[in-house]
Amino acid sequence: MRVDGRYFRTLWPRGARSSTLCAIDQRELPHRFVIAELDDAAQTAQAISRMLVRGAGLIGATAAYGMYQASCEGQDLRAAASLLIATRPTAVNLRWSVERMLRAADEDRDLYSEAMAIADEDADWCQRIGEHGIALIRDIARRKPAGEAVNILTHCNAGWLAFVDFGSATAPIYRAHDEGIAVHVWVDETRPRNQGAQLTMWELMQHGVACTLIPDNAGGHLMQHGMVDLCIVGSDRTTRCGDVGNKIGTYLKALAAHDNGVPFYAAMPSSTLDWSIGDGVREIPIEQRDADEVLRARGLLDGRIVEPLLAPAGANAANYAFDVTPARLVTGIITERGICTASEQGLRDMFPESVRLQPSDSLDVDNV
Amino acid sequence: MRVDGRYFRTLWPRGARSSTLCAIDQRELPHRFVIAELDDAAQTAQAISRMLVRGAGLIGATAAYGMYQASCEGQDLRAAASLLIATRPTAVNLRWSVERMLRAADEDRDLYSEAMAIADEDADWCQRIGEHGIALIRDIARRKPAGEAVNILTHCNAGWLAFVDFGSATAPIYRAHDEGIAVHVWVDETRPRNQGAQLTMWELMQHGVACTLIPDNAGGHLMQHGMVDLCIVGSDRTTRCGDVGNKIGTYLKALAAHDNGVPFYAAMPSSTLDWSIGDGVREIPIEQRDADEVLRARGLLDGRIVEPLLAPAGANAANYAFDVTPARLVTGIITERGICTASEQGLRDMFPESVRLQPSDSLDVDNV
Repeated sequence: MRVDGRYFRTLWPRGARSSTLCAIDQRELPHRFVIAELDDAAQTAQAISRMLVRGAGLIGATAAYGMYQASCEGQDLRAAASLLIATRPTAVNLRWSVERMLRAADEDRDLYSEAMAIADEDADWCQRIGEHGIALIRDIARRKPAGEAVNILTHCNAGWLAFVDFGSATAPIYRAHDEGIAVHVWVDETRPRNQGAQLTMWELMQHGVACTLIPDNAGGHLMQHGMVDLCIVGSDRTTRCGDVGNKIGTYLKALAAHDNGVPFYAAMPSSTLDWSIGDGVREIPIEQRDADEVLRARGLLDGRIVEPLLAPAGANAANYAFDVTPARLVTGIITERGICTASEQGLRDMFPESVRLQPSDSLDVDNV
Repeated sequence: MRVDGRYFRTLWPRGARSSTLCAIDQRELPHRFVIAELDDAAQTAQAISRMLVRGAGLIGATAAYGMYQASCEGQDLRAAASLLIATRPTAVNLRWSVERMLRAADEDRDLYSEAMAIADEDADWCQRIGEHGIALIRDIARRKPAGEAVNILTHCNAGWLAFVDFGSATAPIYRAHDEGIAVHVWVDETRPRNQGAQLTMWELMQHGVACTLIPDNAGGHLMQHGMVDLCIVGSDRTTRCGDVGNKIGTYLKALAAHDNGVPFYAAMPSSTLDWSIGDGVREIPIEQRDADEVLRARGLLDGRIVEPLLAPAGANAANYAFDVTPARLVTGIITERGICTASEQGLRDMFPESVRLQPSDSLDVDNV
């Protein structure tokens, strides 16, 4: 996607086969556009755990490059894999891509090429998600009075910043906008880290898509009053039964969509599917992050980024980073192959090879 | 309630029959405890619109005093009433108390005494809400292993800071705590103004009640995992059918409670009931506030209160301050007379005199 008119991906090698990975430092957005250089596997792991990079697809692609860096450094790759997988517990793309790199190493394939292929595939899959998802937006636009925008609500950032390019939830939106369909996006700010306010707003505004920031509390009211035509969110891990693990608060929006008859879709590449588990509420591990993210908010003041204290000094806070939306609340899943129901049948029909795709059964990397 | 051990109400006259009203400046909490002095009706109206005071009961009591101030100033009381009612459109206590002051004026009763009576009644009613509501907490405590806290989720601030004393949603909590029942409160931060983070956390901590701040996104996850025994919220306006208008985001928590079998109660004095309307989603006017509240967050940095920008410069934002929870999602309503179902029958049985209590029909103050 473009930043001030110039084409960027979220990450790229400093040069061909370089052991340095360049990445947009997402902690600085939207206030500053900073490129970080990650010189080794340890720095890359830290960039994931400290959320310099974040988002299901992007942390997968970043970790794949981390595996390449580890191989350049002569590290034990299984140890490196465990370390990278441990950086974020919920997103399954991370494990998926690290295990794919291990398999490539076992098969003596070139790890640089494999890491590049993972990044390219991520971008390609997101582009296909856009091709399939636009049909939903086009259908709604056809039923509206001419010129009236299709109102889409999204949560967190499942935009191009969460992947290598295009995004998952945003891919159909960008595509619709580019084809001249009027769209308007309600962007949940997504406390506590405000990925909606900081990242989704920034990338939609950069691309010229009409958008309005709302508190996470507002979506239900908007849906009660017919102001949302469609919800599209991303996912960090979706079970074989279609339960969608995603940023905390997604479940509340899905409940409101269900209560008001608003279609609710999760968009994700197949690398986000975890075929090894069924019941997401019971089985998807939910990352808990630092209470300080809840007690403070990050913003720009007099030209510098500050994090003032919102609560009384000494307050306790809890910070569950994800929740799980049961499949019964999900209208459908938009994948790189097309749209299917959020069910084991729907997902198996879309990915019939999935019976053979259970990497965690075949490789001895710790599940974390 | 106590602040650093000293007894306070949220407002009081500077002296008997004084035309100056003293009030805790809630915009400064939790970082500074500041008493504001409101010298005339215009200052009092501004204190309400600028949220120096806020909360259903408190703005009612404040506006009542504003009517007394207007009478001291020799103002036309119907004009003063319209001005005060216009300060906040959603909360009905405001209209209720202003119309009660108008009626007292029409009947040549003493307006100072009437304003004091409204404040005293507010505190008394909240205390009674505590007496009735504690039964819910006691029942849950009895079913729990000894010593295990009853987990209560609340949204926004329906604490003593939102009334004259005790609060509505918090009254049963304070009472349970004082009787030695172990309680723990999950406090929604309540963006965009963070009344949960700033006010509810502060007053619960002042009173020694165990509490944990959570993002507004978290409640659904907590309920899915059995970590919430009971939700209690306040209300700014409840219709005769039991639809509960309250701070934006309340509806989302009610949906999650319903989906997980968690009892969901609204606590309110009868001054919050609007007998003149039935369908809350259609009929309760929803205040829209400044977009800047969404684009920024207020907090303490290096000893001063700052409001850094969270979103990209130039971002649009929408700021609906309230939403409506349909009665079907409300387990019951805790009033000063007892607990009833959220239905016209339940409310009429509890307040049989209500047929005669439709002030907006009988007085010619503009509805705003």
